[in-house]
Amino acid sequence: MTKSELFNIYIEHIDDRIYKETKRNWDNLSKPLDGMGDFEEIVCRIAAIQKNVIPRITDRVLVVFCSDNGIVSRGVTQSEQEITKKVAISLGSDCSSACCLARNVNTKVVPIDVGINCDEHIKGVINRKISKGTNDFLYEPAMSEKQVLQAIDTGIEFVKLQKKNGVELIATGEMGIGNTTTSAAVLAGLTGIDSDEIVGRGAGLNDEKLLRKKSIVKVGLEKYIEEFNLVTEKKEKTFEILRCLGGLDIAAMSGVFIGGALYGVPVLIDGFISAVAALCADRMVEGTKEYMIASHSGRERGTEVALREMNLCPLINGNMALGEGTGALMLIPLLDNALYMYLNCTRFNEMGIENYERFN
Amino acid sequence: MTKSELFNIYIEHIDDRIYKETKRNWDNLSKPLDGMGDFEEIVCRIAAIQKNVIPRITDRVLVVFCSDNGIVSRGVTQSEQEITKKVAISLGSDCSSACCLARNVNTKVVPIDVGINCDEHIKGVINRKISKGTNDFLYEPAMSEKQVLQAIDTGIEFVKLQKKNGVELIATGEMGIGNTTTSAAVLAGLTGIDSDEIVGRGAGLNDEKLLRKKSIVKVGLEKYIEEFNLVTEKKEKTFEILRCLGGLDIAAMSGVFIGGALYGVPVLIDGFISAVAALCADRMVEGTKEYMIASHSGRERGTEVALREMNLCPLINGNMALGEGTGALMLIPLLDNALYMYLNCTRFNEMGIENYERFN
Repeated sequence: MTKSELFNIYIEHIDDRIYKETKRNWDNLSKPLDGMGDFEEIVCRIAAIQKNVIPRITDRVLVVFCSDNGIVSRGVTQSEQEITKKVAISLGSDCSSACCLARNVNTKVVPIDVGINCDEHIKGVINRKISKGTNDFLYEPAMSEKQVLQAIDTGIEFVKLQKKNGVELIATGEMGIGNTTTSAAVLAGLTGIDSDEIVGRGAGLNDEKLLRKKSIVKVGLEKYIEEFNLVTEKKEKTFEILRCLGGLDIAAMSGVFIGGALYGVPVLIDGFISAVAALCADRMVEGTKEYMIASHSGRERGTEVALREMNLCPLINGNMALGEGTGALMLIPLLDNALYMYLNCTRFNEMGIENYERFN
Repeated sequence: MTKSELFNIYIEHIDDRIYKETKRNWDNLSKPLDGMGDFEEIVCRIAAIQKNVIPRITDRVLVVFCSDNGIVSRGVTQSEQEITKKVAISLGSDCSSACCLARNVNTKVVPIDVGINCDEHIKGVINRKISKGTNDFLYEPAMSEKQVLQAIDTGIEFVKLQKKNGVELIATGEMGIGNTTTSAAVLAGLTGIDSDEIVGRGAGLNDEKLLRKKSIVKVGLEKYIEEFNLVTEKKEKTFEILRCLGGLDIAAMSGVFIGGALYGVPVLIDGFISAVAALCADRMVEGTKEYMIASHSGRERGTEVALREMNLCPLINGNMALGEGTGALMLIPLLDNALYMYLNCTRFNEMGIENYERFN
């Protein structure tokens, strides 16, 4: 795929007729109108995406993109880079924390290596390695144009295959030491918000390291700001910010969001990194956000900043900061509940209340 | 039970040793420290309440108190009073919306009539009727002292019996046309916040009726404010506010929160009415809040106001406004998930990462 092909992807609006018919079905259930609140809206949206008033989310997968980030050499993390590989091994052998949670919510986990800094193939992890980690963005752009496109393509192709296999819902996740740093840099670049307001503690930085992380992100942004300002076209600018400051995981996840919109599969946003990838996707391919569902707000402040840019609202609080798609997995039983109610709740005419407006 | 007996109930602090031991178990799981955020805290609290580092929430019930409110004669609701009875019938025959959701989260529903305005016993609904609805509080106090105590006692006795039967978690819910009006009045009385800031649309009032509801609540508060101001003792004052402006459902639910603390059963707060009952309970019997778990924020602004008074934070957003305990039921699969992870997640020493601090 070329950049021009990417920018010319056309996304259909979700099916308004199905959306409204689904909402009418909700309104006939024996409960106050809009009683299930945003959960009604999400079921309507899933129905509209699937073009079916009886939507299904039984067949679902969590994709976890694993990759390393050159910026970790600057001391922005508490963990060493090798943890990315260790957790990928754990994901591949179905025993990481996300795998545990996924079992409990009947979701298949698919880990994909798009850029772990290692030579070997990891058992149970799909090998789509683009490079052995990105460049240190303080020194040079994190990725080449070709690498970004390849990562996005990996995400899109993943969705295409899943759709073919009958998958009805995709959750996104990542594992990559340093990726809250890259995400903060990208989000500050995209929004113009002071990066100090966005940089967070990631998986648990102390005060000293947090200051260091803030300063590294700021210097990184300053290095490229003139170049970014020269690009006036929104899609092109987003691509450049992602290329210079982002990571292979962010790029691949943005491909999943684009793929979800292209092939009509609802995609769950997880936390900070996933939300930034979602925003990149929506800015590069307009209309993608209609196919996204936000899950949780998480501990990183940037998550809500990124979601707000798309008028999306997380459904779960809880200050989670685990990664690997665990926040998106937490949302799944709530979607199951909402869909169960939509399909099984008593209707007013079965209950001896003739006119549902009287229930308001 | 007399008022003095109620005010002298002594609540133990939850078990700090078990709490800390449970947290240490979390910290040994292969994930960033505090990665599951508030869900870790809640599992620790449930463990501390149950005095067991391996807590259980498999055996659980939703109690739904049904009662009518005299204030509905003033036109503060869109629905007619008879809807309370109709939904109670639906609860009793296991086909209301809460029953549907409860089935999907493996929770038993126990509807209890504490004050429906009808003569007959409703099939499937436990009869603990205290009166056929409360008085119109614009005319006279909603309840007598004896009625409030009887309702609270009903709640406490319910928990005692459930505990004896092995129940490990209780969710609270209600059904009573007019009970967002009574809850708003009670909350404004308890906090001193302008009632206009608290009164909401309930199950869907239009603008005109909302203005009417605001004015009725304001007039109700003004009627009793001098009397309230004469009472300086916090417990006594709370009781009087509940008695004059509240409802039998609120009083009975506050009994459940007190009972949960007394018998060591964690109790889930649902939405607005439940949160106000929880606040009443904690103000009348100190320490009760340690045994409560907030579920969702809901569409009524008062929910967060009441929760904030107890430093509790809802875990689900979603603008739900259904009642019957549906918001509390939505939280249950999230608690199941958190507990499953706590019990089944891989530990660091099983994963080849020796020192979990390196994962930060």
